[in-house]
Amino acid sequence: MTEQTIAVIGGTGKLGLGIARRLAIAGHRVLIGSRSAEGAQAAAADLGHGTLGLANAEAAAAAGIVFVSVPFAAQEATLREITSHVQGKIVVDTTVPLVPPKVMRVQLPPDGCAAMRAQRLLGTDVRVISAFHNVAATKLMSDEPIDCDVLVFGDDATARGQVVGLVTGMRLRGLHAGALANSSAAEALTSVLIFLNRTYAPGEGGIRITGLSIPAHDGA
Amino acid sequence: MTEQTIAVIGGTGKLGLGIARRLAIAGHRVLIGSRSAEGAQAAAADLGHGTLGLANAEAAAAAGIVFVSVPFAAQEATLREITSHVQGKIVVDTTVPLVPPKVMRVQLPPDGCAAMRAQRLLGTDVRVISAFHNVAATKLMSDEPIDCDVLVFGDDATARGQVVGLVTGMRLRGLHAGALANSSAAEALTSVLIFLNRTYAPGEGGIRITGLSIPAHDGA
Repeated sequence: MTEQTIAVIGGTGKLGLGIARRLAIAGHRVLIGSRSAEGAQAAAADLGHGTLGLANAEAAAAAGIVFVSVPFAAQEATLREITSHVQGKIVVDTTVPLVPPKVMRVQLPPDGCAAMRAQRLLGTDVRVISAFHNVAATKLMSDEPIDCDVLVFGDDATARGQVVGLVTGMRLRGLHAGALANSSAAEALTSVLIFLNRTYAPGEGGIRITGLSIPAHDGA
Repeated sequence: MTEQTIAVIGGTGKLGLGIARRLAIAGHRVLIGSRSAEGAQAAAADLGHGTLGLANAEAAAAAGIVFVSVPFAAQEATLREITSHVQGKIVVDTTVPLVPPKVMRVQLPPDGCAAMRAQRLLGTDVRVISAFHNVAATKLMSDEPIDCDVLVFGDDATARGQVVGLVTGMRLRGLHAGALANSSAAEALTSVLIFLNRTYAPGEGGIRITGLSIPAHDGA
């Protein structure tokens, strides 16, 4: 694996911290981005593993690959903050279109899914990839095995492959899952998992794809 | 389990036959429906297990629970054939909105998903449940263990529970997966599974939900 400089925008949230942590442990230089540089610095100091905290725009500007991990309601404003700094780069959007209070009900946005919305907002020169819709943030913060696959979507197969590689380095099974529009499947599944977790409590549901010709990875 | 009379409309197709077979083996009286009564009779004679073949409308009229298993392009015409015969009943729609030639690309219909379209077409007096979007038909035709969960969607929790019970009787793990609108998750996932099967060939992908408080069922 080649060490890379990776920003995690919204990196002070639970999922963002979990992603930042696993990327840093995998050996990457991780920049945690937040609206306030101070908040980002505090989160990075807490997390350790050599992570650094910066304001969102600065983190995006300094990185080659940019993860975005913010609530659906903050997606548009956050992407506008970084748009000029991510042209020509890979942006990994992890946004799930949960619409409170009915978070157990699938409510896909007019673009079809949050990932397609990201692509529209960022423009065609950004290679948008989407992933990490179904992994519990708490699990990424631990070193325990994670019984969940990471479906990776994107229209640029090379960029998608780079992200699958990053996921593997994070000790999870990343799977090429097709076009960016297919992200709707994983995004919708998040609401289903929230429903399943409540119905079959105590649940912390994830998904596994069965029957493929490649081995599962236990995430440990 | 109470033995019931169950119709499988489109029961001469691969998935329909697989569902009919497992329902019949579970002890239900199964009516295979097809556009032509002769075709349905031939399919039932081939399948055995006490199944009977009838024209779609007759099969629907004679059953208490009606499965519908037809291609997306035939969904509307098929539902119109049976609408007057299923009022007040449970209809289990298994339609996946695949739009050839791009079957590996998620293309959800304007209603949000095929199940919501079925509910609109059948009217509010029909309790529409959706399920069986992700299980390979060939597996239902065998007695081998099936490493795949069946997500069951519907707005009427009692009707949904009846279908979860039927799924269990078919020796699969059926899971309450929430509102009918949530069916979009499983329907979209079918295109993703087709992509995964081709990418990680030879694949015959299914899904498992991990991390719940109930045991998996091996489908054997």
